[in-house]
Amino acid sequence: MKQLLVNADLLTFSGPDAPRSGPEMRSVGLVRGGAVLMDGDKIVSAGLRDLVQRHPDAGKARILDAGGRLLMPGFVDSHTHPVFAEPRLKDYALRSQGRTYKEIAAEGGGILSSVRALRGALGEDLAHALFERARRFLECGTTTIEAKSGYGLDAASELKTLRAISAASAATPLEMLPTFLGAHAVPPEYAGRAKDYLKMLCGEVLPAVVREGLARFVDAFCEEGYFSEEEAELFLRAGKEAGLGVRVHADQFSRGGSRLAARLGALSADHLDRVEDEDLRRMKEAGVVAVLLPGSNHFLGLCDFPPARKIIDAGVPLALATDFNPGTCPCWNMQEILSIAVSRMRMTPEEALTAATVNAAHALGLGKTHGRLSPGMQADMVLLDCEDLREVPYWFGANLAAAVFKRGALVHSTTELRI
Amino acid sequence: MKQLLVNADLLTFSGPDAPRSGPEMRSVGLVRGGAVLMDGDKIVSAGLRDLVQRHPDAGKARILDAGGRLLMPGFVDSHTHPVFAEPRLKDYALRSQGRTYKEIAAEGGGILSSVRALRGALGEDLAHALFERARRFLECGTTTIEAKSGYGLDAASELKTLRAISAASAATPLEMLPTFLGAHAVPPEYAGRAKDYLKMLCGEVLPAVVREGLARFVDAFCEEGYFSEEEAELFLRAGKEAGLGVRVHADQFSRGGSRLAARLGALSADHLDRVEDEDLRRMKEAGVVAVLLPGSNHFLGLCDFPPARKIIDAGVPLALATDFNPGTCPCWNMQEILSIAVSRMRMTPEEALTAATVNAAHALGLGKTHGRLSPGMQADMVLLDCEDLREVPYWFGANLAAAVFKRGALVHSTTELRI
Repeated sequence: MKQLLVNADLLTFSGPDAPRSGPEMRSVGLVRGGAVLMDGDKIVSAGLRDLVQRHPDAGKARILDAGGRLLMPGFVDSHTHPVFAEPRLKDYALRSQGRTYKEIAAEGGGILSSVRALRGALGEDLAHALFERARRFLECGTTTIEAKSGYGLDAASELKTLRAISAASAATPLEMLPTFLGAHAVPPEYAGRAKDYLKMLCGEVLPAVVREGLARFVDAFCEEGYFSEEEAELFLRAGKEAGLGVRVHADQFSRGGSRLAARLGALSADHLDRVEDEDLRRMKEAGVVAVLLPGSNHFLGLCDFPPARKIIDAGVPLALATDFNPGTCPCWNMQEILSIAVSRMRMTPEEALTAATVNAAHALGLGKTHGRLSPGMQADMVLLDCEDLREVPYWFGANLAAAVFKRGALVHSTTELRI
Repeated sequence: MKQLLVNADLLTFSGPDAPRSGPEMRSVGLVRGGAVLMDGDKIVSAGLRDLVQRHPDAGKARILDAGGRLLMPGFVDSHTHPVFAEPRLKDYALRSQGRTYKEIAAEGGGILSSVRALRGALGEDLAHALFERARRFLECGTTTIEAKSGYGLDAASELKTLRAISAASAATPLEMLPTFLGAHAVPPEYAGRAKDYLKMLCGEVLPAVVREGLARFVDAFCEEGYFSEEEAELFLRAGKEAGLGVRVHADQFSRGGSRLAARLGALSADHLDRVEDEDLRRMKEAGVVAVLLPGSNHFLGLCDFPPARKIIDAGVPLALATDFNPGTCPCWNMQEILSIAVSRMRMTPEEALTAATVNAAHALGLGKTHGRLSPGMQADMVLLDCEDLREVPYWFGANLAAAVFKRGALVHSTTELRI
């Protein structure tokens, strides 16, 4: 079916098929009085209404009126941990009472409580919960997410997690790209034997993941006290050799991860709170996207945030993501993350929008099909109830999404678009 | 019409008809498997389903199913500046580029830009914009707000503002209690002549406000560089003598406001970032509610937040509010403010919920009718898409409101409640 959406101001992010860095991040490709012509799941034309309407297919299209609102590519959320059995409400309440991370862990909280709960959960319950969460992402204008495993930490539970992502993907319009994050933490039964655990992952789990086509990427938590640079490399290299893309939890607390990401030609290095200039140079040379996750810093009540300005100044392409997870960032709303990025990391609204669309798509290896409004791109779009792009991060704690299209289908709306 | 809402977990906040302080703030009156019976705009019974169903009117009521969700009093937002002509997007973008408040003011930004814009706006346009904003508050579960003037700062524009609140009130179910905040700033035409400005307010504007019944409260910005303690007292005392309740913007940057609030028997002292122990003792004795506004600290990217724990420990009843305004807090969502309060001020979820309901109602002098689920109270309620009260602040950047009742009428819903 052909659809012509008219009467919108567009953020097209049109331009070269590459992630944006430095001053390029301020270029959003604004078209006032624009239109978008879709054919099935693809955009065939986007730009000034007069131009779009000259397309030979425009006359046959069903016409939709955007009501003068802002239309942009659906948000791409390139870092989430959305498969978990329960929210970590006890940890949350304890932290509000001033308890430290160590004290919470001693009371049975922290990541290992998520592991216990996930191991005990049925795969179909995990899939159902993920399906429900997917609806929340879509309602907020996010049309593609990366989805990690990593609360299973044994063969059966990691596979159960990835199969739940596969099952939920079949039921929701939200596009979910699965990541095998086996190296998220060392499980209790391997305490002090990280290498043995990684050998088990590489020997038993990875082959099954690849055989069943359950993941697009591998990821490792490369930090002091978790997996060393050398250990993370062992796991990530095995994944890479098996044909998976590489992502790294890097430099959140300690050095090593970002330089490993550069060495492995990873798609992204994520967190980067403590990234050093030398490692930014390596990332730039290797074409690694910096994925920043300021939502967790906010939720934990921290004053320090990832050094966005330093990263942009270094010429490394920057993406923003939610880090959606039950322990440190229970937020599915990319608009909220953009707001935090502007208020806390001094990103401009334009930079934040670029980081949540075109750059985020590149962080997932989807730059050719996602994150822009251009001919040939997938018709993933969000119509926002505002007139000015600066309003997207400005009205914080809000969801401005008035309509959401995924692959050309209207998957959420709070308004009537038909004329 | 009688309505019986069943199958909900209730936060009743039942208890004495007084604001809660100290450890009392942790008591939310949870009733699992509860029900609420409404008759018209009032609650006639709330509690365990079996008990509520024994009420003689229960048999005649239309039955609604809450689906096992959490039901609580509608949020009461006791501090907002919702009447403005335009969002301050330029200031926002400049601040994201690292510009200081002084530089922004020098470029024509800051509060005086809101004053210029409001003076140039038509009253009916202000009323219409306020009506639209009221919908956003309702959608997030807020059923009552306090609404300040203060961007007019001349006789005609302050009256225009208060009349816009009156006009919008007639059209929206959101209950708006108007506050005459003439002493928000010294307007340019009175530069250096604060007392002359206040004399004009007291001589020309206040009598008209009272005559037309346009305000319930007066408020003044009592800070160094704005209105001194003595000047603010002049204005507030005139308002009090004219029969209006007193509120004070206090101790955000400098001392004076909270002690003035205590001296005048104000309903609330608001902000309090720098409140001193001695002034908290005065507030406690005088029964002044502390209204904290952490949303603005968050939006401005500050690390310091109002000292909630010190205030609770001092036994002063604490309320939370949005401070909704175009310069420092464009957030209409009380759930977001609760989340910031827990993450940044170490309030517990229970304390935050108490601060947004029963205590906020008392801050507005509405404690006898608002902020609790008890017989005789106004039927203002929000049904939240969660099972555990801790989820309300936990899922940040979200709006969990599934249904909102104002005076017994269903004014917003995302779900079907009929059986």
